[in-house]
Amino acid sequence: MKVRNLHDLFVSELRDIYHAEKQLTRALKKMAAAASSEQLAEAFREHLQQTERQVARLEEVFATVEQKPRAKTCEAMAGLIEEAEDLVDSVSDEAACDAGLVASAQKVEHYEIATYGTLATWADQLGLSRAAQLLKETLAEEKAADQKLTTLAEGALNLRAEHAGA
Amino acid sequence: MKVRNLHDLFVSELRDIYHAEKQLTRALKKMAAAASSEQLAEAFREHLQQTERQVARLEEVFATVEQKPRAKTCEAMAGLIEEAEDLVDSVSDEAACDAGLVASAQKVEHYEIATYGTLATWADQLGLSRAAQLLKETLAEEKAADQKLTTLAEGALNLRAEHAGA
Repeated sequence: MKVRNLHDLFVSELRDIYHAEKQLTRALKKMAAAASSEQLAEAFREHLQQTERQVARLEEVFATVEQKPRAKTCEAMAGLIEEAEDLVDSVSDEAACDAGLVASAQKVEHYEIATYGTLATWADQLGLSRAAQLLKETLAEEKAADQKLTTLAEGALNLRAEHAGA
Repeated sequence: MKVRNLHDLFVSELRDIYHAEKQLTRALKKMAAAASSEQLAEAFREHLQQTERQVARLEEVFATVEQKPRAKTCEAMAGLIEEAEDLVDSVSDEAACDAGLVASAQKVEHYEIATYGTLATWADQLGLSRAAQLLKETLAEEKAADQKLTTLAEGALNLRAEHAGA
């Protein structure tokens, strides 16, 4: 796709995050299965449901610019997921694995926060008010998901990891 | 590296961000060269200098846990940089390219914010007060760099991109 202006860039970025979210739905299932803490597994399952709604919301954003939803390979999300999988393979202790899964999930959230923040700003500047509103809804959800993970990490998970193997 | 507890996880994550920062120093040189806006190019050059200081600070963190600085391939940063390079290749308009470079840089900043946030929390929980202090200094710098990019993006850059090709 040749990008000539901010509108083209907006559509290109939509395709990137559409692919990223779809990759993430698959990864979250694996992360929930790998989590030892039931609280963390439940957080991943909840975020999976939220991510599925965000995919549907992105399809609505594509419609506002009269584009069919199309995905473009998101190398960054592929790298983030690969790192999360490597972590699960390298950690022998359950609690340390959970702490690492939270860290991986927060990197994913921050990728999404950066991307939706950019998309919402561009939508505003392009006068796409409905798209901007939808993108800001998802942005707020991603920030809340990140905050929830911070709370989990600062609570039981890390303390358990700290004492494991000691 | 086999990860048995939070301390091992901390060292593993240090090696990841050490590699990421080193990749980034190379990428920022290219991003400064690709930027059309002198203001943006200057922001990238400034962040390059800051990144070099952050690499040195990471080496100090390794010393606090009596480890030699060692890098472990960071697939996520590799993906982020690949996306930034693809963007430069796909955008024909200078102003749209600049807007895209800012978006790419903000994704990088958010990767770093997530990682340094995690590392600082773990350092606190492990009682590594000097390491925590150093990591929080970098975390504050990354947040400020992200904010500076937001200001640039909301200012002239996007407006120029919007009108280009029109």
